[in-house]
Amino acid sequence: MHTDLVAALDIGGTKIAGALVDGHGRIQARAQRATPAQQDGETVMRAVEEVLGDLAGSPLWGRAGSIGIGSAGPVDASAGTVSPVNVPGWRDFPLVERVRAATGGLPVELIGDGVAITAAEHWQGAARGHDNALCMVVSTGVGGGLVLGGRLHPGPTGNAGHIGHISVDLDGDLCPCGARGCVERIASGPNIARRALDGGWRPGSDGDTSAAAVAVAARAGDPVAVASFERAAQALAAGIAATATLVEIDIAVIGGGVAKAGDILFAPLRRYLRDYATLSFVRRLTVAPASTGTDAGLVGAAAAALASPRPTSV
Amino acid sequence: MHTDLVAALDIGGTKIAGALVDGHGRIQARAQRATPAQQDGETVMRAVEEVLGDLAGSPLWGRAGSIGIGSAGPVDASAGTVSPVNVPGWRDFPLVERVRAATGGLPVELIGDGVAITAAEHWQGAARGHDNALCMVVSTGVGGGLVLGGRLHPGPTGNAGHIGHISVDLDGDLCPCGARGCVERIASGPNIARRALDGGWRPGSDGDTSAAAVAVAARAGDPVAVASFERAAQALAAGIAATATLVEIDIAVIGGGVAKAGDILFAPLRRYLRDYATLSFVRRLTVAPASTGTDAGLVGAAAAALASPRPTSV
Repeated sequence: MHTDLVAALDIGGTKIAGALVDGHGRIQARAQRATPAQQDGETVMRAVEEVLGDLAGSPLWGRAGSIGIGSAGPVDASAGTVSPVNVPGWRDFPLVERVRAATGGLPVELIGDGVAITAAEHWQGAARGHDNALCMVVSTGVGGGLVLGGRLHPGPTGNAGHIGHISVDLDGDLCPCGARGCVERIASGPNIARRALDGGWRPGSDGDTSAAAVAVAARAGDPVAVASFERAAQALAAGIAATATLVEIDIAVIGGGVAKAGDILFAPLRRYLRDYATLSFVRRLTVAPASTGTDAGLVGAAAAALASPRPTSV
Repeated sequence: MHTDLVAALDIGGTKIAGALVDGHGRIQARAQRATPAQQDGETVMRAVEEVLGDLAGSPLWGRAGSIGIGSAGPVDASAGTVSPVNVPGWRDFPLVERVRAATGGLPVELIGDGVAITAAEHWQGAARGHDNALCMVVSTGVGGGLVLGGRLHPGPTGNAGHIGHISVDLDGDLCPCGARGCVERIASGPNIARRALDGGWRPGSDGDTSAAAVAVAARAGDPVAVASFERAAQALAAGIAATATLVEIDIAVIGGGVAKAGDILFAPLRRYLRDYATLSFVRRLTVAPASTGTDAGLVGAAAAALASPRPTSV
């Protein structure tokens, strides 16, 4: 049978989404389960198998020639294992082998979720047509991925582009990862909110202390809220400039909840980029908001499976 | 005639070296001129033409099928131009076109000098056998280059791997490049010496205030000298860890005058790397001293010419 589709899995700490995706990135069938994130590894795997079972019930299933997985990280594509921070039951869990076994031996391509979103933005979003791009998600955490020389660059283990955990402040605050002054430690949503609260900002009557609430206050002119977003923008600019200086990207695409703050984030980000991206070959670097939606993880996982040069995976 | 050799040029602020190099990286003929760095662009070009003229006088010249150039940066490989900081007469100088014209139309491959040294270390040095490597020169400045997926990654303009100008201290001291807290601003030889002097270290009777003299003092136990190297090591570790986190390298190779300090630099560097390279996929990262010698620039330029997929260049 002609295999013109791929199956895609997007595995996060909240939900496990699955889809059958065609060569144009259109989703032809869907399935989803909540992630039983705090339960044992086999229980989590059963939820994955149920998603796959739903997809296999589709009349289109026979046209799926391979499977792409985008998973919360860290992942190890070379070993075929995942150890998502928010799914403690999975540590070096052999996801590739288990998914292959559950699907009768289909080839499986595994990448981190930041890399998957990058694949989606390069295929269909704001990074389309750019041969060298950094795509980021700024949300509860800060993740990312790279396109280099026109192709996704997942790196040997599928984790490349992990911009949230590069240090831009070597003497800075300790990050849960163990390092100091990581981009995520300064620019993630919870850190934007924490800094605003530390500076004296107080939420409205709804008690909302999220970064989105800080963005609303910033838009209304609250100087502490503005300063917290400016500091996040400065850290993001230093990290993006470092990436451009290291691998020559010409665009940085930013998605995730914090990016929804719009100009509150992007205006100071563009200003700080001029301070940190100074060498001739990085001065033309631009930033743009992400344009793929909630299906980006699925579409990106599908893109990785379609692009894989390997007939079968590990 | 069989073209089993390449011509190589290594263009720096002090000298312009040329060679005919065989497919094993062995130098079969040499030529050299001092760089008339403070003179006009045509005078500098004349020195390049004299080096090429000497090489063309070799009976082996007819076997050279292409030319590789490693030049002090910034370079622009996509435009075929160079603008070396220390050669003010060359700004957007069309070096590729001029070298091609001077050699009867041979194809020319242009890369930055950090990329050239990386090519040499990957071919014959400490990065041999590593598919993902960062190679650095820590000296008057801090330069570098990347090997990704088994191949040199010069980037579209030939400048990738410019680790000296990524910020690891976003509020830090202003760098001549315009940014703040760049790796070079903390870890270069002159900055190691400046920091030691600022801290109260004084040179011996020879009056030598170089980083090499600070290294001698550190080896003798001078705490200010030790601290200055430790700070340099911390900045290098943060930069190397950032690079590994972004593109997944498994080795960082460090050459240049400052690396000759040996354990005074490498011991704290390895210690700090454990602090900054924390994610699972970067924890196995190792560092090693460079092993190619003074011909690294020539050998690397030759490697780039040999590896170029292009029949002719820009």
